[in-house]
Amino acid sequence: MNERSRVVIVGGGFAGLNACKGLRSEQRVEITLIDRRNHHLFQPLLYQVAMAGLSPAEIATPIRSLLSGQTNARVFQGEVRSVDFDRRIVAADFGEVPYDYLLLACGARHSYFGHNDWEPFAPGLKTIEQATEIRRRVLSAFEEAERSPDAGVRRRQLTFVVVGGGPTGVELAGAIGEMSRFTLARDFRNIDSKLARIFLVEAGPRILPMFSEAMSGRAMRDLENLGVQVWTSSRVSKIDSSGVEIGSERIEAATVLWAAGVEATRFATASELPTDRQGRVIVNPDLSVGEYRNVFVAGDQACFRHHSDRPLPGVAPVALQQGRFVAQAIVRDLNGQPRAEFQYVDKGQLATIGRSRAIATIGRWNFRGFFAWWVWLVVHIYYLTGFRNRFFVVVSWAWSYFTFRRGARLIVGKEWRNEGPRG
Amino acid sequence: MNERSRVVIVGGGFAGLNACKGLRSEQRVEITLIDRRNHHLFQPLLYQVAMAGLSPAEIATPIRSLLSGQTNARVFQGEVRSVDFDRRIVAADFGEVPYDYLLLACGARHSYFGHNDWEPFAPGLKTIEQATEIRRRVLSAFEEAERSPDAGVRRRQLTFVVVGGGPTGVELAGAIGEMSRFTLARDFRNIDSKLARIFLVEAGPRILPMFSEAMSGRAMRDLENLGVQVWTSSRVSKIDSSGVEIGSERIEAATVLWAAGVEATRFATASELPTDRQGRVIVNPDLSVGEYRNVFVAGDQACFRHHSDRPLPGVAPVALQQGRFVAQAIVRDLNGQPRAEFQYVDKGQLATIGRSRAIATIGRWNFRGFFAWWVWLVVHIYYLTGFRNRFFVVVSWAWSYFTFRRGARLIVGKEWRNEGPRG
Repeated sequence: MNERSRVVIVGGGFAGLNACKGLRSEQRVEITLIDRRNHHLFQPLLYQVAMAGLSPAEIATPIRSLLSGQTNARVFQGEVRSVDFDRRIVAADFGEVPYDYLLLACGARHSYFGHNDWEPFAPGLKTIEQATEIRRRVLSAFEEAERSPDAGVRRRQLTFVVVGGGPTGVELAGAIGEMSRFTLARDFRNIDSKLARIFLVEAGPRILPMFSEAMSGRAMRDLENLGVQVWTSSRVSKIDSSGVEIGSERIEAATVLWAAGVEATRFATASELPTDRQGRVIVNPDLSVGEYRNVFVAGDQACFRHHSDRPLPGVAPVALQQGRFVAQAIVRDLNGQPRAEFQYVDKGQLATIGRSRAIATIGRWNFRGFFAWWVWLVVHIYYLTGFRNRFFVVVSWAWSYFTFRRGARLIVGKEWRNEGPRG
Repeated sequence: MNERSRVVIVGGGFAGLNACKGLRSEQRVEITLIDRRNHHLFQPLLYQVAMAGLSPAEIATPIRSLLSGQTNARVFQGEVRSVDFDRRIVAADFGEVPYDYLLLACGARHSYFGHNDWEPFAPGLKTIEQATEIRRRVLSAFEEAERSPDAGVRRRQLTFVVVGGGPTGVELAGAIGEMSRFTLARDFRNIDSKLARIFLVEAGPRILPMFSEAMSGRAMRDLENLGVQVWTSSRVSKIDSSGVEIGSERIEAATVLWAAGVEATRFATASELPTDRQGRVIVNPDLSVGEYRNVFVAGDQACFRHHSDRPLPGVAPVALQQGRFVAQAIVRDLNGQPRAEFQYVDKGQLATIGRSRAIATIGRWNFRGFFAWWVWLVVHIYYLTGFRNRFFVVVSWAWSYFTFRRGARLIVGKEWRNEGPRG
């Protein structure tokens, strides 16, 4: 009688979930998926939660319910404390889980380049909690401006700085532009929300460096049309409670958002695996690590730098393909076949700037404007997990498109206990 | 040239919002609505957010956007500190606001009957923060049970106590029953969610006392069908971190929910107005207070005990009708007409227990079962604010009804800062 191979997957993001699903019909394995969250999050649309366009539940689904039909998998919500690679045991907060195969897919978190004291003043965007915190700050800034009689306070409250000119920074800055110019325009009496000043600050010479120079220039023009001023070659030197310093310049801003650096989660850096400067685990061509043939790392936590001088970027398609690859590698092992090398199939780049505005590079073709925006919509809906979420997101978008409104403009706090007066 | 009358409304719930809208075409007033929240909340469906059926944004709408077309109204998000009734000035955290007419509609909050130390162990359900906290606790209990090897821990985690047999308590207990018996049944491997023990504890002799005895008995049977055990004439004597005591009995429960007592918000009790034991302001037949003809109190904050020996209950229809009445009273004043007395038109009682189960009393007619449930659905959709919310709630309900699933099963924490490992 043969024992089934125990596969432990840590992390239910794109990599972990797709590895698990890739083993769905493999009866020779039993899978344990561990995640500290109960939900799989569709990160590419998280900025829309932060910008009050979507509700958290529309882009998040319980991992447990995604896998309810997969009888060879069980799911635990818990935290992994450490891994004993020699004894092949994962130590989680609820007990020890032995494995034959291990996939670490714990994702990434924001890095403030050694300035962790900036975090309270400039939240990043990786989790639902961060998205609702950003939503709270952005919407509250307009409320504060409306009720203040002081012109200086109003200007500071109506100033928004987004640090980092990658896709997330561009999406955030574009959405604030759109919100201030369209969504909120009729709702205030004392302020003109269209006067909001929005800055996108990028340390490199241009925004969206994964695109061609022409395309990145086009994105910058689109941002300007929405009232966003783009500062390139500008390195932030200080962030405090009232604004941002870039060398000898200073902007007074009530709201600063961080979309610049990324590092692997702490767990990876604390372990004994070889890592790069951002704490990502350096993987072999088959995504295994060092001499541990049965330990894989995938997604944002992995540093894959074969086939190219630059490591693969921390984006959803890489994680998704790596997750599927790990499932195949395990099946090949069980079949006694040799493993392949991971090959990333780059299907193209997409970035959206706002309503009807996007840029897309697919193979040798570049698209921009309305058509690129449609491509962006269709691709994101296609990859969004779960029929219900797809349907709700499509309807939310259609409603927002035709009404210029946003459906989730809630300011929600942290404290749930009884509070003082309503008024 | 006549000055416009300054109307200040504190609180954007059913009473405040309907008073404001009732003055929409009155050009002789200028309205300032102050609320500490940016949103109007449709309280009657809040339990569905707590039970993972709806997203917060589906039952909450920015007050500002509800009033964006009403040019004689402006909205401030802020807290009212005090009112000087003689100088006719509201002191808010953003400055002083003078008024000619004032409406206080600050709502109610939970009361633990002098046992405020119970609150951490038994959250109430009045705000979105409380709803997501309850959702977190209920869903986490199942997760904890799934991952624990200890049978005692599992039993404690799978035990839910709801305190209070009014409509909210019945809805919460019924929804937990439905969730454990249907929604979650296929999602767990180590536990059988159908074994969850659910208790509804009521101090009075029966649940839903606003209905006839026969109807309240029917509701109890419906709850039992969903696995809920109803304890009547049972007064909670202690709540701690691991359970509930009722006299000499004790139930070990990881999750305790509070749906028992209500009191007016602190602001009312601190002021110099006459109040009842729950801190509600005792109002005149025209909803004005004491000798202040220009000060009204409405909704859950008001204690109206004319025309009947019991004060009007703190429910949405009372607040809504009182809000409209206050608008009329102001218009009559401006026209030089005498004010009327407030007359509550009781359209009936509705309570839902779960899928296809509800009871309704309309005039002399009693309905129950599927038809009553349809009445409940239609009434709640009809009164829900905003076309978008109506549409999304209808679609959410239809999806849940046919799939037996719930669309918002998210466990979301409070801390947004960078955290440890994902796994």
